[in-house]
This record gives sequence, structure tokens and C-alpha cells, in this order.
Amino acid sequence: DLDHCIYCGQCERACPTEPPSIDFTQVPKIHHLKVGAIIVATGFHLFDARLKENYHFGEYPNVIHAMHMDRLLAPTRPYHAILRPSDGKEPNNIAYILCVGSRDKTVNNPNCSQICCMYSIKQAQLIMGALPLADVTIYYIDIRAFGKAFEEFYQQAKDMGIMFVKGRVAKIEQKENGDLIVWYEDIENGGKLCKAEHDLVVLSVGLLPDKEIANVFKDQKLEVDDVGWIKSADENANPVETSIRGVFAAGTALGPKDIPDSVIEGGAAAMQCAAYLSEVRGRH
Amino acid sequence: DLDHCIYCGQCERACPTEPPSIDFTQVPKIHHLKVGAIIVATGFHLFDARLKENYHFGEYPNVIHAMHMDRLLAPTRPYHAILRPSDGKEPNNIAYILCVGSRDKTVNNPNCSQICCMYSIKQAQLIMGALPLADVTIYYIDIRAFGKAFEEFYQQAKDMGIMFVKGRVAKIEQKENGDLIVWYEDIENGGKLCKAEHDLVVLSVGLLPDKEIANVFKDQKLEVDDVGWIKSADENANPVETSIRGVFAAGTALGPKDIPDSVIEGGAAAMQCAAYLSEVRGRH
Repeated sequence: DLDHCIYCGQCERACPTEPPSIDFTQVPKIHHLKVGAIIVATGFHLFDARLKENYHFGEYPNVIHAMHMDRLLAPTRPYHAILRPSDGKEPNNIAYILCVGSRDKTVNNPNCSQICCMYSIKQAQLIMGALPLADVTIYYIDIRAFGKAFEEFYQQAKDMGIMFVKGRVAKIEQKENGDLIVWYEDIENGGKLCKAEHDLVVLSVGLLPDKEIANVFKDQKLEVDDVGWIKSADENANPVETSIRGVFAAGTALGPKDIPDSVIEGGAAAMQCAAYLSEVRGRH
Repeated sequence: DLDHCIYCGQCERACPTEPPSIDFTQVPKIHHLKVGAIIVATGFHLFDARLKENYHFGEYPNVIHAMHMDRLLAPTRPYHAILRPSDGKEPNNIAYILCVGSRDKTVNNPNCSQICCMYSIKQAQLIMGALPLADVTIYYIDIRAFGKAFEEFYQQAKDMGIMFVKGRVAKIEQKENGDLIVWYEDIENGGKLCKAEHDLVVLSVGLLPDKEIANVFKDQKLEVDDVGWIKSADENANPVETSIRGVFAAGTALGPKDIPDSVIEGGAAAMQCAAYLSEVRGRH
């Protein structure tokens, strides 16, 4: 990723092959290929948390999003510690806000992003390891731990002491010392507006499609749904076929999903693609 | 299905082919085939609702399960009406209880069954069409409307007036007239024990595996998880491969899932199977 390369040359020295597999002189090239079929696997965009103005992401330094936390928790993390951005203090009372940019008509995404519940619970468990004395609270609407062994993972998080509060967060306010006041609807206690104080807030942002894919094909428009995910030819019988013959799709190009589901869809798309090619080439 | 055939012969008359495609004289035959690979797609068993003794399924006539309701709602339904079993009255206050036999360690199934939320919401919407004056209440723990367009479907149900109450149902009692008293933990109001009266209760039963599959293979045991679902060789990288080489799995044999996900997995299994066969047969 050239935008982040400091040309230190460490990678080149670590990987000395002939011809060199790392070549700093390369420039982007466009290749024109003639193909019989295409599998679209664009991946996704993260929801831009600035659009939820009440949460003041980008303005309050201690409101971060989950991909930032992922970096703070990575084995190769900076500082080898979790430090909050405003003052480098180790946070001891962290809030997760789920469904940021998901299930939310005000930002034009009514869909559930499928993965935010689970990546947040995973991070919360890792935080309990990295910061054993920290409190972690997860504000949720519904915990969608639907996949295989997900429910056990969720129950394990509760057993570890991670707190789950049902209620959408209305707004976040910042105190002078950088701590944050989270206002939420306390659904488990009659739905009244409550507040809680946290020293770090993590926004669990949802997934959005790459909207440009609809216009990539020259003579035909690829059909997408209202949000921009690619439409299946038949949601039940043929989920990986698209509106254009010979064009298939897999993974989050079709909608939010996790890694195993994307792998499975990739397999299904490959199968459909092979069947299509042998059909149009007359080889059976 | 011979157990339900009344030998009226209508199907034979409707489908007069030569040789006859419907032949009442056929008996089961075992075929021995030599195959290079196998895809296991056993499907699932429904949870036996009698095991949740507090709900008195099989004892209180007006406690039915969702597959019964599916029959009552089908276009070819008996009576062309929804009648409650005890007295043939049209119910006007129906309760759904979600997670019956799912997310429940007391019946040895900690897993989420993935489909019960959505089939219940679908049925509830159909009930609003069939019985426009009826109230429908859905008792839930979390509404797991995770799939594509599921969230909109859930919101539509709320807009139609279907009531959602967060809380697991503790027990059901029967009144003399056949009406039912549902005791539940009212999580949205501080978690106190509450009761409500309904004239029909539908148990949204979960899915369980066909446990015999582990022992079907002669020389090797197919690895399954604690509940009995087939284990993937690698949950992330290779979800449709099993512990036995050349044996693949798809659909609910691997775990609870809905129709589109099963179709996708079938495609992925077919692809893996073809790749495996061409590998072992030395054709590349």
C-alpha cells in the first residue's frame, strides 16, 4: 500500500528473490483480458461513522470505531497497550455501540450488517485479556449470535463479565477530561432515557456496498437493491447468479456476511461459473 | 408417503404415463453403488417440544408448534380457517414463543436455530391476513433478523401491529375454557415476572441434527460437534469438507440454516466434490 509505505526497504531485504518479488519501481498497469464469465467479489465499504452526527466521531478523540480497536488489539499493535487517543491513558470503562450505520433508516441503511455483534463480542473478550480490570459495556438492539457456536461465544462473554444493555444510544457528550457521557434508551428498565460515563467509546460500524459496481459493465446495468448490494437472480434457488448472464457474485458483494459464509459463496459461485462455461462452450 | 396414503388412486389418474410413473406395487430396495465421493445432506430434526415440560405441549391442546401452524396457514389448509384444536374456535389472541429447544442448555441445545425468528414473523404476518382482528404477540430473547431484507420484514411486522415482548417464557398454565396463561420475565420492564392470557400458543421449535450420521460410515467415524452437527474440516477456510476425505456436507447437516444458505452450501459442496474427484482421478 504505497500511501502508507515509508520506503524503508525492510520488506525487500526480508524477501530477497531473483527476480525480486518486491519491486518499488512498479506502476499500475491495466490488463485487457477476454473472459467467458466473471465472478464479482468487490468486498464492502465500512460505514462512515461521521454520518451519525450525535456520536461526534472525528470530533471527540475518544470516540473510535471498531477497526481502530482491532488495530489496538492486534498482536502487532502500537505501544503494546490499549491507550485512549486523547491522553494516552489506559481506558478502564469502555462502551461498544452496536448498529452504527446499520438497521438505521436515518442513514439509508435499514439492513442488519450481520458481523458487528460478533466482532464486538470478540473484541470485548480480547479487551478483558488486555485490560483485565476494565469494564466493557455493549449497547445493543438485538444480539444476533446466529452462526455455529456463536451463541456459546456470546454466553461466554456474559460469563466473563461483559455487560450487555439493550437500547440504542441517542447521543454522546464529551466532558472536559475527555471522558464521554452516553445517553441511551434503557429498554430493560421501561425505556427511560439514561446516561452512563465511559472513558472510551467504540462504534461498531456496519457494512455498505461498493455502489460503483452497478455501472462497471459496458452494455448492461448490474441490478442492485435499494442499498446497493448486488441482486441475486433468484434469492432462494440461485443466490450467486446476477441479472447479467455469465456474471456471478460472491461474498459481501451480495450483502453483509462473515468469512465462512463468504468462502461458501465463493465455492458456489465457482461451481455455477464452471457449469455456465461448460454449457456455453458446448462441452458436457 | 405410504403412511399417509389412502390409496384413492387420484394421483395415478392425474398422471397416466407409460410405463406408469406412479406404481403402488413398488417396495423399498437397497441399491449398492460404488462412488468416489459423497455429499451428506441429511437435513434436520425438529426439536421435540414435549421436552420443555413447562409448556405442556402434547397435554394442553391449544399449545401447538410452528409446523402445525404452517399447516393451518397453508393454501391447501384444512377447514380453510385457523381453528384452535380444543374447541374449533377462531383464535383471536395468539402467542408465539421463540427459542423453544434453542439457546437452552436445559435441553442440551445451546445453539441458535437461525430460522425460528423469521419463520415465526412470516407466520405472524400471514395470521394478520387470515385473522385480521387477531392479536399476535411474539415472546423473544433477541430477534435475529440477520439476512438480506430480513430486517425490513421484521420492521414491517411491527408496523402491522404484531407485538414483540423481550423475555423467555417460564411456564404456561391452562384455564378451564382452554385459554392459556403465559408467565414470562418482562425484560423491557425491569425483568419482573408477568402473565398474559392467550387463546392459542405456538411454540417456535428449533432444529436438531440427525445424530445417526456419525456412525453411518463403516471404517471411520464422521466427526460431529457436541450437539451432533457435522464438524467442518476448517470452519473458515473449508466449511463443507468433513473429517473423512472424500465426504462433504451441505445444508442443515452442518448446522441450522435457511433455504438460500443451504442452496449456496450445496453449490460449494458440489464444487469441492468435483475438484476432489478430478484430483484423485488424476485429471486436471
